[in-house]
Amino acid sequence: MREVSIIGIGQTDVGEHWERSLRDLAVDAMIAAIKDSHAERVDALYVGNMLSGELTAQEHLGTLLADWGGLGGTEAYKVEAADASGAAAVRLGYLAVASGVHDFVIACGVEKTTDADAETSNASWTYGTDAEYEGNQGVTVPSMAGLLMRRYMHEFEVTHDRFAPFSVIAHANGVNNPHAMYRSPISAESYARAGMIADPISMFDGAPLCDGAAAVLLCPAELARRFCARPVRIRASAAATDRLAVHSRNDPLFLQAAQLSAQRAYLQAGVAPSDVELFELHDAFSILAALSLEACGFAERGKATALAGEGAFDLHGRTPICTMGGLKARGHPIGASGVYQVVEVTQQLRGEAGANQIEAHLGMTQSLGGTGATAITHILEG
Amino acid sequence: MREVSIIGIGQTDVGEHWERSLRDLAVDAMIAAIKDSHAERVDALYVGNMLSGELTAQEHLGTLLADWGGLGGTEAYKVEAADASGAAAVRLGYLAVASGVHDFVIACGVEKTTDADAETSNASWTYGTDAEYEGNQGVTVPSMAGLLMRRYMHEFEVTHDRFAPFSVIAHANGVNNPHAMYRSPISAESYARAGMIADPISMFDGAPLCDGAAAVLLCPAELARRFCARPVRIRASAAATDRLAVHSRNDPLFLQAAQLSAQRAYLQAGVAPSDVELFELHDAFSILAALSLEACGFAERGKATALAGEGAFDLHGRTPICTMGGLKARGHPIGASGVYQVVEVTQQLRGEAGANQIEAHLGMTQSLGGTGATAITHILEG
Repeated sequence: MREVSIIGIGQTDVGEHWERSLRDLAVDAMIAAIKDSHAERVDALYVGNMLSGELTAQEHLGTLLADWGGLGGTEAYKVEAADASGAAAVRLGYLAVASGVHDFVIACGVEKTTDADAETSNASWTYGTDAEYEGNQGVTVPSMAGLLMRRYMHEFEVTHDRFAPFSVIAHANGVNNPHAMYRSPISAESYARAGMIADPISMFDGAPLCDGAAAVLLCPAELARRFCARPVRIRASAAATDRLAVHSRNDPLFLQAAQLSAQRAYLQAGVAPSDVELFELHDAFSILAALSLEACGFAERGKATALAGEGAFDLHGRTPICTMGGLKARGHPIGASGVYQVVEVTQQLRGEAGANQIEAHLGMTQSLGGTGATAITHILEG
Repeated sequence: MREVSIIGIGQTDVGEHWERSLRDLAVDAMIAAIKDSHAERVDALYVGNMLSGELTAQEHLGTLLADWGGLGGTEAYKVEAADASGAAAVRLGYLAVASGVHDFVIACGVEKTTDADAETSNASWTYGTDAEYEGNQGVTVPSMAGLLMRRYMHEFEVTHDRFAPFSVIAHANGVNNPHAMYRSPISAESYARAGMIADPISMFDGAPLCDGAAAVLLCPAELARRFCARPVRIRASAAATDRLAVHSRNDPLFLQAAQLSAQRAYLQAGVAPSDVELFELHDAFSILAALSLEACGFAERGKATALAGEGAFDLHGRTPICTMGGLKARGHPIGASGVYQVVEVTQQLRGEAGANQIEAHLGMTQSLGGTGATAITHILEG
């Protein structure tokens, strides 16, 4: 197995792109990633996307984007793993380079949610659940996150306001990210006043669905310096799954897949959570941020909100999270989010994070699918 | 890169499974593949599927099937490449084993078309096209195949009846495949009388959409004999793409992606078309069978129908095609077909093809997406 590095990154602004199509966004990110490197060819394209068929009547998306990206016959696939689709594209791109089959691979995540009517777009909240036992019964990902949050509050005797730091941190960091959807800070007070979506999940507990595309260009580490002044090495790539329906899990408040994929990643990289200097986690809902931190060894069970309250996850805290705004403030273009996370850690490790720059050489990303049944973790070194 | 072998195969009957769900079919095929080997674990699952979201409101399909298949936390993804989704799952499973990351990988193809109403189901004929330039304008894959066939007939001065052998061969071979959807032979006369779907594409030129699942279990070739008495080695795995919209291609009657992926496969395996002893090709439409044969070097341009008429592609001809019925008679459960092809060549190379058994040590599969914009080729050795 070969070592793999990131030699190019690209991203579009995250938001509501009413005037641009799925393909426009994706190709912009792909071309930006190519231009960011000095690579002269692309051998394969992996597209992370969840809902192009349901929302824009377009499957065969890998081939479409290879076509529109001018990649000239390169092999291409769409990879789907719910919200973790983008991270899955990075993982499969990593395998393609590690295997020795390909030298230059693009992993691109893209989602376009604003092309569908509201009913279709809302229905997409069920597609990541177990359709027969959850989605078709009216259970959505936000409502299930609400049940998890309520149970967590009961189990660990934590009040709703204790979750405020996750959203406050994300919005504070989003202010300085020019690609973020929301660039306004929020306060603990405004968090407390936010309207309910799926009690106790409020407007400020959930990340917004939106449009966006991000891309990374991978190549063997041994070639990376020829094509990039500051390559970032993928020290670990790991994935795991859990029972899809929440009712089937041993303990709904413990994200087994998140733990398993993080442990596999730590083992591969030969590091511990304390070595991780920033962590781009999956804060689609603030409860998922708390559960991720606990599953990955950054907080004891039931203690994530207390640590957050102490500033452990602030931009200059012990383990900064959501340093460019996270899903909450940068925005959550579903199948693209996992690639945005990798792009943002790469920016930090290269020293290109602007006003949000932190001192870091080792960063981690973790993308979750649905309510955590899929977890994909990458550890990057700059 | 490690060599990779197939150590287990499984398949459900192909047809209209009104009483069984997507997950039932897939898990049956996966378990059959596991039982067919002596493997004691599965490290990763790649699911080839095109339309689970559109037709059954279920995404996150990889994780669902890892869950229902009892794979205990193994990483899992859905891979989409239109009709070639199943072949894409085999290709990515191959890469995962070749890379050294995983030892035991299942590639499962599954499609369930009968769970949707007719309107939704028919709309799926457009999802593999370029939606903005073809599908949204009313162009479907069958209508585009009709245009290609009409042009081919004009360009090469071939009458419609000359395409009969492709369907006649497929149905003749389907008779002896217990898993095939259609097990009745057809004659050139009945072919000539068949009703038109998209002139000149008739009922007997097109493969039926239907339900089905097939799976293969892969492991490193060096371990294969410990888990399987008759492992089949993947001598080559290759893929390529073309412009998605037919109007963008240099020559609509030449399947550039099919040629490119076949050439890459021949190069990897160190063989020529004349070494290939059977060819499971993508006969979603008889015109695609002809174009595939020409692109892959089994017939000169414009000559495939003449060779077919001479018996070159009969079960005991020079290069047998569709030996278990092909997409036409076995049935075309979209995202599953590419895996069925690999299962069927494995059956032939193992000597398990029953009444359709031919003498062969080297077989090839090629799966196309849509009208040929994606092509994935595998060469297997028994």
